Amino acid sequence: MLEEIRHQPEALERTLRAELPHAEKFKAALAKSRPRLIVLVARGTSDNAAQFGRYLLEITTGIPVSLCAPSVHTLYRAKVDLSDALVVAISQSGESTDTNVVLQDARERGAMTVGITNEPKSSLTKLAEWVFLVRAGKERSVAATKTYTGQIMMLYLLAYALGADLKIDDLRRIPGYAADALKLEEEITNLAGRYRFMDHAAVVGRGLNYSNAFEFALKLMETCYVVAERFSSADFLHGPIALVEANFPMFVFAPSGVTWPGMKDTIAKLQLLRAETVVITDEANKSVTASRVVRIPAKLPEILTPIPYIVPAQLLAACLASEKGLDPDKPRTLNKITRTM
Amino acid sequence: MLEEIRHQPEALERTLRAELPHAEKFKAALAKSRPRLIVLVARGTSDNAAQFGRYLLEITTGIPVSLCAPSVHTLYRAKVDLSDALVVAISQSGESTDTNVVLQDARERGAMTVGITNEPKSSLTKLAEWVFLVRAGKERSVAATKTYTGQIMMLYLLAYALGADLKIDDLRRIPGYAADALKLEEEITNLAGRYRFMDHAAVVGRGLNYSNAFEFALKLMETCYVVAERFSSADFLHGPIALVEANFPMFVFAPSGVTWPGMKDTIAKLQLLRAETVVITDEANKSVTASRVVRIPAKLPEILTPIPYIVPAQLLAACLASEKGLDPDKPRTLNKITRTM
Repeated sequence: MLEEIRHQPEALERTLRAELPHAEKFKAALAKSRPRLIVLVARGTSDNAAQFGRYLLEITTGIPVSLCAPSVHTLYRAKVDLSDALVVAISQSGESTDTNVVLQDARERGAMTVGITNEPKSSLTKLAEWVFLVRAGKERSVAATKTYTGQIMMLYLLAYALGADLKIDDLRRIPGYAADALKLEEEITNLAGRYRFMDHAAVVGRGLNYSNAFEFALKLMETCYVVAERFSSADFLHGPIALVEANFPMFVFAPSGVTWPGMKDTIAKLQLLRAETVVITDEANKSVTASRVVRIPAKLPEILTPIPYIVPAQLLAACLASEKGLDPDKPRTLNKITRTM
Repeated sequence: MLEEIRHQPEALERTLRAELPHAEKFKAALAKSRPRLIVLVARGTSDNAAQFGRYLLEITTGIPVSLCAPSVHTLYRAKVDLSDALVVAISQSGESTDTNVVLQDARERGAMTVGITNEPKSSLTKLAEWVFLVRAGKERSVAATKTYTGQIMMLYLLAYALGADLKIDDLRRIPGYAADALKLEEEITNLAGRYRFMDHAAVVGRGLNYSNAFEFALKLMETCYVVAERFSSADFLHGPIALVEANFPMFVFAPSGVTWPGMKDTIAKLQLLRAETVVITDEANKSVTASRVVRIPAKLPEILTPIPYIVPAQLLAACLASEKGLDPDKPRTLNKITRTM
């Protein structure tokens, strides 16, 4: 897992370079038929990437986005009207049964279909009309890391193809931002020891970093067996905050930008409740009142934060698994490919 | 909270009776302009009801549904194309700031708007074009119960108005099913003692009962301070199942119907892992291998299960709070109305 985390800048750079021409071609095709709705379908880590896509695509293209509930299609066999929709399936292996069933159904019902996967010879690449390949190389750890950030990169390209005001030169800087975040490895290794006996936690994020809350919580569950909740900071205030007592461990993604004022208030509330807070941020020290601050080296436009912000969280999950004497590459009970209907 | 749980059959019956003529009127209006997309916007318990609505509306009407991410509108100020959309805000108090902002924006941008609330004089009733009132009476407990089931009833009526093949006579039976489920109170009171020292848990559901997994987990968090995860059974198998060790507490909503075969497999997996499983079901004893089975008295069509199935879970949360010496009506840190942007 650690090796694959470190591998991300290279994988991201390769993915962007290889898939950009394809995105340009897709952009030209979309100019003739703009979808009225985007449906994202995925499971597990890929579904967390889809959560990012949901925010990115609505914010930058104004096209409404729905995160698919696969059982509506696979179990209830509903005939959802997907004409004029763009249906995007995301799957590391390309072999997620329910995801593929939804894509096939959608295509038969007239939707435009896209597949995002790490596996060029998978079932998904055969089913989708347009295929985007995450060039992350073989992912050996059951806990996905480089395919998550690769999928996020592809979602930026998808937004670009749909007419988002995203500059390719900005996207080209992301691998470097990820490399900068990797320099936190020593700091994170030291920090991990503090959480050796943590058996539950909650992670909060908002907007474009909401998906990172899901993804970090999933890594904590899969690799460290920590019962980790995940919330948007707004939903958190609508009930779950009742959980928080002194020393309750809270992890917070808090980049500067439009989500910062609300996140700052949430952090202050947690401080009053004497929670143990770890804040991942680029805000200046004096504005952050937390037990521990993980400082992202550069102040980035918020839209570019999701990839560099997940890196220290991935490192923390991997290091914490080691502290706990667990093998993060082979979590109990799980296999790399999960098939569900 | 217990009083309000017991009050549900009466509140549901009153809500259905009072709002049915209004639903018929809405149905006539919709016959002239069928929406191409439904957007549901809510927070907290109301967002759990929206999760139910997402499944119900897609399954029974075939119109795609999106659960709104309010920050896209309130913080990012995105101009999402909501023409021809039906935007439905759900809020117990009708005073949830972000929910109301989204509704107002949507209406200004040409969407048809609906408000579902318990409060006839709230801001939401002034903002929405069509208002449906949950006739649950004043809800005093901070932990919502009768407004959740009331909102679910309204979502059935909304589906009916949109042309779903739902029989009003079937809906009229739901208050009676809820009353039957309330007869489990003594059994649940006895069961609660077993979980007195439980400090974490996971709740799974699927399809139409997925929302109940969210809602029961929220009640466990708010009233019992149990760190309670919630998953669809399919997502659960894609990672979080790694959490499960011997005695790990799992609560499972498992009605008979299309979701049962997959749920039965999940329950069998949990059994192999020696989890502590509590299964809420109408399936016969011999097909359920669980630590404890909460048997729903009658075998119901799956589409009618969500309200009667949440009742024993609400009772369990209330009884467990008592076991733990907590006041479920006044959770620490929370107020009845939460305002977020």
